[in-house]
Amino acid sequence: MDHLYEKTLHSETIYEGRIINVRVEDVELPNGKSSKRELIDHPGAVAVIAITPDNKILAVRQYRKALKKAIVEIPAGKLEPGEKPEVTAVRELEEETGYTCESLDKLISFYTSPGFANELVHLYVAKGLEKNGEQAADEDEFLDVLHLSLEEMEKMLETEEIHDAKTAYALMYLKMK
Amino acid sequence: MDHLYEKTLHSETIYEGRIINVRVEDVELPNGKSSKRELIDHPGAVAVIAITPDNKILAVRQYRKALKKAIVEIPAGKLEPGEKPEVTAVRELEEETGYTCESLDKLISFYTSPGFANELVHLYVAKGLEKNGEQAADEDEFLDVLHLSLEEMEKMLETEEIHDAKTAYALMYLKMK
Repeated sequence: MDHLYEKTLHSETIYEGRIINVRVEDVELPNGKSSKRELIDHPGAVAVIAITPDNKILAVRQYRKALKKAIVEIPAGKLEPGEKPEVTAVRELEEETGYTCESLDKLISFYTSPGFANELVHLYVAKGLEKNGEQAADEDEFLDVLHLSLEEMEKMLETEEIHDAKTAYALMYLKMK
Repeated sequence: MDHLYEKTLHSETIYEGRIINVRVEDVELPNGKSSKRELIDHPGAVAVIAITPDNKILAVRQYRKALKKAIVEIPAGKLEPGEKPEVTAVRELEEETGYTCESLDKLISFYTSPGFANELVHLYVAKGLEKNGEQAADEDEFLDVLHLSLEEMEKMLETEEIHDAKTAYALMYLKMK
């Protein structure tokens, strides 16, 4: 047993939503005392670095109600129940940008906010892109599609025009390779 | 008005916790239809890249109840009400690692999970570190402190021994500089 382990003493489901569930748990700490944890269950998500034949990266500008503003991110979306992440990745890329891809490679998975949420993002790189039609986003999704060079995106990170963790993770990965 | 704007039609607070609040909102979409948004309000947080005199980066290993496991991250913590982020940064660094710092510089701020949460993480770099005593973490926090080189952390990112968004953001920033 990990010496940092926290045992669940009591778990109460506060809310079961369409995307997230909310739980409050009483836990036993390593020193025997107890504390409360507020936890979000999330189905997980994918994010896609999609590189066009002319070496641009596809980005989307999308209104985020949680932030009360639109921000620039790489294409992404949550997993549907039972859906394999690579299926979600292809679907979200096409829905959000209108592009299909010839190849899709898994890069890495990471947690966005481990202090309170279990959201795990699976990051993919898509190549061999072909514009197959219009965007066909979910009926509650509205997006602008942007074609940006790696250099443009890096500059936008420095100026905080991009300030989204999964997008930064993606750029870091491209830089390291 | 942004053409992607979503107007709030109705907002219901589901839960008001110690750290997060949960809201469900009915919104009017750009096409006039309506949808639901499940939203988490978070007070915001800081994360600190703390570089020791022998050029190691301080990391902490901490049990994350949301993930049901311990993971490695850079020191971080949520903002207390009314607290300036730079004060939180110095406090969290000392509480989690026992180190004080001579200089603290703001690097950037970013959203961890803009699809459902407004958590904004302020990233700092701390130098001139001095071990001033033992850890004095919050009474519900238990941590192992690690001293890792940039190369070790990069390798851990590739093998997913580190898979935390704020830690990756921090490493990316160090690489770009």
